[in-house]
Amino acid sequence: MSQAASAIPFQQGSDLISTTQFDLDSVETLFSLSDSLRPLGRSEYACDVLHGAVLSSLFFEPSTRTRLSFESAFARLGGGILTTTGFTFSSMAKGESIHDTARVISGYCDVITMRHPDKGSVAELADASMVPVVNAGDGAGEHPTQALLDVYTLRRELASRGKTVEGSTVAIIGDLRYGRTVHSLIDLLRLWKGVRFRLYSPASLELPAEFFDREDAHRLLVCESVQDALKGADAVYCTRVQRERITDEKVAASIESAVLLNRKMVTDWSNRDLVIMHPLPRDSRPGSFDLAPDVDDLPGLAIFHQTDNGLMVRMAIFCTIFGLDQKALKASYSVPKWHSAKPIARPGLHSAGRQAQDW
Amino acid sequence: MSQAASAIPFQQGSDLISTTQFDLDSVETLFSLSDSLRPLGRSEYACDVLHGAVLSSLFFEPSTRTRLSFESAFARLGGGILTTTGFTFSSMAKGESIHDTARVISGYCDVITMRHPDKGSVAELADASMVPVVNAGDGAGEHPTQALLDVYTLRRELASRGKTVEGSTVAIIGDLRYGRTVHSLIDLLRLWKGVRFRLYSPASLELPAEFFDREDAHRLLVCESVQDALKGADAVYCTRVQRERITDEKVAASIESAVLLNRKMVTDWSNRDLVIMHPLPRDSRPGSFDLAPDVDDLPGLAIFHQTDNGLMVRMAIFCTIFGLDQKALKASYSVPKWHSAKPIARPGLHSAGRQAQDW
Amino acid sequence: MSQAASAIPFQQGSDLISTTQFDLDSVETLFSLSDSLRPLGRSEYACDVLHGAVLSSLFFEPSTRTRLSFESAFARLGGGILTTTGFTFSSMAKGESIHDTARVISGYCDVITMRHPDKGSVAELADASMVPVVNAGDGAGEHPTQALLDVYTLRRELASRGKTVEGSTVAIIGDLRYGRTVHSLIDLLRLWKGVRFRLYSPASLELPAEFFDREDAHRLLVCESVQDALKGADAVYCTRVQRERITDEKVAASIESAVLLNRKMVTDWSNRDLVIMHPLPRDSRPGSFDLAPDVDDLPGLAIFHQTDNGLMVRMAIFCTIFGLDQKALKASYSVPKWHSAKPIARPGLHSAGRQAQDW
Repeated sequence: MSQAASAIPFQQGSDLISTTQFDLDSVETLFSLSDSLRPLGRSEYACDVLHGAVLSSLFFEPSTRTRLSFESAFARLGGGILTTTGFTFSSMAKGESIHDTARVISGYCDVITMRHPDKGSVAELADASMVPVVNAGDGAGEHPTQALLDVYTLRRELASRGKTVEGSTVAIIGDLRYGRTVHSLIDLLRLWKGVRFRLYSPASLELPAEFFDREDAHRLLVCESVQDALKGADAVYCTRVQRERITDEKVAASIESAVLLNRKMVTDWSNRDLVIMHPLPRDSRPGSFDLAPDVDDLPGLAIFHQTDNGLMVRMAIFCTIFGLDQKALKASYSVPKWHSAKPIARPGLHSAGRQAQDW
Repeated sequence: MSQAASAIPFQQGSDLISTTQFDLDSVETLFSLSDSLRPLGRSEYACDVLHGAVLSSLFFEPSTRTRLSFESAFARLGGGILTTTGFTFSSMAKGESIHDTARVISGYCDVITMRHPDKGSVAELADASMVPVVNAGDGAGEHPTQALLDVYTLRRELASRGKTVEGSTVAIIGDLRYGRTVHSLIDLLRLWKGVRFRLYSPASLELPAEFFDREDAHRLLVCESVQDALKGADAVYCTRVQRERITDEKVAASIESAVLLNRKMVTDWSNRDLVIMHPLPRDSRPGSFDLAPDVDDLPGLAIFHQTDNGLMVRMAIFCTIFGLDQKALKASYSVPKWHSAKPIARPGLHSAGRQAQDW
Repeated sequence: MSQAASAIPFQQGSDLISTTQFDLDSVETLFSLSDSLRPLGRSEYACDVLHGAVLSSLFFEPSTRTRLSFESAFARLGGGILTTTGFTFSSMAKGESIHDTARVISGYCDVITMRHPDKGSVAELADASMVPVVNAGDGAGEHPTQALLDVYTLRRELASRGKTVEGSTVAIIGDLRYGRTVHSLIDLLRLWKGVRFRLYSPASLELPAEFFDREDAHRLLVCESVQDALKGADAVYCTRVQRERITDEKVAASIESAVLLNRKMVTDWSNRDLVIMHPLPRDSRPGSFDLAPDVDDLPGLAIFHQTDNGLMVRMAIFCTIFGLDQKALKASYSVPKWHSAKPIARPGLHSAGRQAQDW
């Protein structure tokens, strides 16, 4: 990644490439803005502060969920969206440099969100773009908006239990080696004092050594089992094994094909008010080494709050980039003439309509 | 399909999964709303009652025409659109359940339209969605908006000839076995009294036996030829042979490669004011067993009125889901400052500009 | 192409199929409108004169840059966009005629932009469409909006040097045989008096003989080298060798794999204020026979002004089609509440934010 880009604090007009662009103040400001945008994200109000603004949504790697979340965030603020998806970009296939692509596309829009399989590619695009660029995931690099929505959700869930991020204990289980979201999550949570991590992973999928070389490595505790990791944890963060990132076949074969975490394990081994998180998607097929669907009606389940919250956080990111503060936003709300949310809970519908609960 | 979903009458906040959700009153209300939306659909006025609302358009099977019709209907009402197309959905490919997909996507939008190759998949998605879901075709299942626009068109065409749906005679010719639209059409037309059907199909493509087991089976008359089917018919509904749905090669080979219906057959064998319908697309290649292009300048041709009307019916469906009645809609119209329709008829342009005729 | 379509002057409600639809007056009117739209294209203002209007963007051949430019132009004017991309169109694959496709799609929108690999296909679609169709490139046919933005840029760049298109000398180098944009450029520049062309191409990639059979062929001078072509030139227009259009392998192999034009060649052989143009994308890979990246900080570089200007010209095209003149447009501007352009130049960012210079 470009040193220049990651060194610029996240503010109006800047790119968002890395979580390193945030300090505690700026991340709390972003979260506070996210809070104030909840009525918009939940369609209780409509607004059009970004009317006339254009987002170019460039996804060179498939990620429907992330793309829709960004695009919905921009649409909720009243902006227009130009979408490009697919593994190949026609001009790049003809030998166009990323500099030329950036310069050209940035002449058509006011902000760019980009996902690309190559680490550093988003920063490279940002360097030549005339408009701000938001990193929607650059391969083995970063996915900063995922880390932000994860921490935002953790903070809200803990707050609803009378707890704070400061001083909390977070168990992280699953693939800690290739799980990009886990690395960004740990990095971002370092901004708060006294957060402790209890780590469990199958052999060969441990957290990379560099994390243990840092000065605050004493916060990291490697555990022998999921049961051990859950001891005293306020929250658990699970990640599926990203088999497509494992090139060594031996390692892939060695991963046990049992469940990572299920309802019985949570009930038997954890605090009653454990917050259960997962970056999604989870693999719900029988035999997958992932979070089991039978946890879905536990009161601590926060996995869908994470995706719901992603909308709010991404709206806040766009508002920051466009220089819109809370005051400007609230002044622009208006009451909508419509509402489509299902009025009544139905059997099998865990979250009984958006009006029924305040997640 | 989920019994729960199909049992809920179509109204504000509900899913639209099946034509069984309608009775005669609710379908007539929908058609009346469709009528009142015609000036909007024809760009005589613009409106923005759905400003701020977001549609997630999920097409896991290609159907450009149906997708564009839904998306245009939503755009005409002022809403924003998030489009996903393609055979694979990235998260589903990683083992995500349809429940998780539904729960996540429904956090990003206010309504979902979905097309999927698997029967029952749309109802399954609807069961876990926080926002209403509209079935845009679920494989061998249903395609309720097609049935609605077909009957809406039939009603309008008959009315322009001083006739009613009640008591009318409808010839249905072509593939009656695999033609999903034919089944939904017959089902929906059962709501009106005294509708009679004259059926013709090539051998092995007959209407499924279950239709003849119903109490009103006396309305169905199997005919030996197209000529016979057209006798006394007020309208004819043609369907092409959907070869991709026929897995038995013998059956596929047995289908005669002649025309299904052409201008001479209509002129020689039918009433002068016969309404000619087809769900489209039709196969216009020489030798295809379909409706021939030489019928295109017959005055009874209604096949493009069907697609035009689809826009109005889908706008009415969205208005119903969002709780917008005719009064609210009419109050929101405003005169546009623009118009793009071609001012003059050109050679080869059958419908001479949108202003030239009131289809 | 249909004679009927290309014979209709470009005006409100008409298709845009060919540059032959313009005379000097109408092209100057379009350019003047483009000038007045610059504040909108640069996001200094927002407007919604096309609020409620719907564009159907049909790209049957990949061309992300052209598609995004058209879609951005429509979005900047407040319109809604329905996008279809991909090599196959589901209905056409089932044997649907281009007439049926045109008639159906034109019932869903107010204007269509279409790119298609087959020459004449866009005109054929236009013949059956109820709404205006804009040619976004029809294979070996035309790409009229590219020619318009090229000449618009040339005119602006020359004007900033106190020169005019009339009487100017334009060097054109590279592939003059298969380069569609070169042919349209020469055709369109014939509208101005006294424009002279100095041509250089590798053997077998010469300008087609038909250009030398015209009455104004004395304006065309074939040069032996790039150095010769640049003599006295006010501007140089480069095109990469479109290898995918060359089917004769011998010809492909004979093309020298050196650079087409680089910084040293410009500095040594041309006027100081030479305007450097290219339709993009350019092949920036080492060894490509194209415009070298080391020209990028020359003051005469206009290649990104071309793409930026494409937005303005395409907005002007839509405004013309929808009958919006300069007065109507200016009345509809409003001050936006946001701005996202990067505030400060960054190392490696050639164009230092959109506010830093008036291209």
